[in-house]
Amino acid sequence: MITLSLIGIGAGNPGHLTLQAIDAMRAADVILIPRKGPEKDDLAGLRRAICEAHLGMEARLVEFDLPQRDAANPDYRAGVDDWHDAVARCWEAALRAALPKGGHAGFLVWGDPALYDSTMRIAERLETRMEIRREVIAGVSAISALTAGHGVPLNTIGGPVTITTGRNLRAHGWPEGAETLVVMLDGNCAFQEIDPKGIYIWWSAYAGMAQEIRLAGPLDEIGAQIARTRQAARARHGWIMDIYLMRRVCS
Amino acid sequence: MITLSLIGIGAGNPGHLTLQAIDAMRAADVILIPRKGPEKDDLAGLRRAICEAHLGMEARLVEFDLPQRDAANPDYRAGVDDWHDAVARCWEAALRAALPKGGHAGFLVWGDPALYDSTMRIAERLETRMEIRREVIAGVSAISALTAGHGVPLNTIGGPVTITTGRNLRAHGWPEGAETLVVMLDGNCAFQEIDPKGIYIWWSAYAGMAQEIRLAGPLDEIGAQIARTRQAARARHGWIMDIYLMRRVCS
Repeated sequence: MITLSLIGIGAGNPGHLTLQAIDAMRAADVILIPRKGPEKDDLAGLRRAICEAHLGMEARLVEFDLPQRDAANPDYRAGVDDWHDAVARCWEAALRAALPKGGHAGFLVWGDPALYDSTMRIAERLETRMEIRREVIAGVSAISALTAGHGVPLNTIGGPVTITTGRNLRAHGWPEGAETLVVMLDGNCAFQEIDPKGIYIWWSAYAGMAQEIRLAGPLDEIGAQIARTRQAARARHGWIMDIYLMRRVCS
Repeated sequence: MITLSLIGIGAGNPGHLTLQAIDAMRAADVILIPRKGPEKDDLAGLRRAICEAHLGMEARLVEFDLPQRDAANPDYRAGVDDWHDAVARCWEAALRAALPKGGHAGFLVWGDPALYDSTMRIAERLETRMEIRREVIAGVSAISALTAGHGVPLNTIGGPVTITTGRNLRAHGWPEGAETLVVMLDGNCAFQEIDPKGIYIWWSAYAGMAQEIRLAGPLDEIGAQIARTRQAARARHGWIMDIYLMRRVCS
């Protein structure tokens, strides 16, 4: 029997780590670190620093390779589905090798494990393949890092908030009736493809990290600057992770 | 000059506290604790325990009374607005009394300060009344506590999520086009007033706390049980805080 802890470690600031996450890391016999091909060096270094600070012993870390998602699959959900199957098989092999007699394995997840992350879904899939008990440790999400950095409330008073992806915003436009929109997983500045009139945007790249960049203002005034800043930052760091909040404001 | 740290302390589990929140608490000259009238004893006790565990010195805590919101005001937003003005005046008096020569004050906020919480808005208002610098420390939100407890992803693969209130759900029904809905601030089981067909619900009361209660299942099978459980738990504890996730599932 294997216990699997999916541990949210926050959005890139080592200070986002919760006491519960530290306890879960220390309780694990082994921390499994999936290698996603040419990984973002800054993130890998940050994760290593977190493990070294709170575990002490490098020996308990086990790295293993993950397959890459076939981004060419025109059916996004089916592509993700196939990929999750392949990833679950890799997890299974890594777990059986690391804990042949059973035990407690931890997986570190950036942000909160429930939000736009595949870890929980892969663990579910794993349950059909081997006997596991799983627990999820909540983490500080990228959304909270975004709003804390800008010092802006997520919602208006009593107002709703929609969280979506760049892909959805591009395909369907501003959601009907939405007042506040959080956009994640946007590799292509989808904010440039909506009517910017009356919309305010709060944008962060590397939210929570030392290299955090923040820009905020009326979308029609600042949209192009965000796109330029994003491109330059991506070139400088070799990778980028960004997130933004947009709100319809009274005009 | 006063520095104000709005510190997210997580959703009721002392283990939700982040390293950054602990640092911010310790850096503060004083922690201001607003008393909201007949407060929920469990929450007050929990906050006291968090302060004792991480501050050590009770003397740095300053409690002060807050006015109550006029719930009878038929205009919800205007009522909240008046109340925020009155609260900002109380904060100002408490800050000037606690830090006559300036310094660093911390406010502890349950969950994440950006999500359905008035603290950030009141701090903004305060900026028009006195010279302050403010920072926000992100926290584990009630949404993350809900999803971690149930071990359920917040979103479907690439799918959007709408966060709303019981008031909105009651007034406007299931939002157009929404697949996943998180409902907060629902004192009246608004889930009972929508068509339950094809909807799955994950409900938690006291999410993250020792007395957490979780129920999940098809809304048409489990809705009444949730309402009964909620009523009984509220009677037993004298208060309740609950949150739920609903998803349209394929039928």
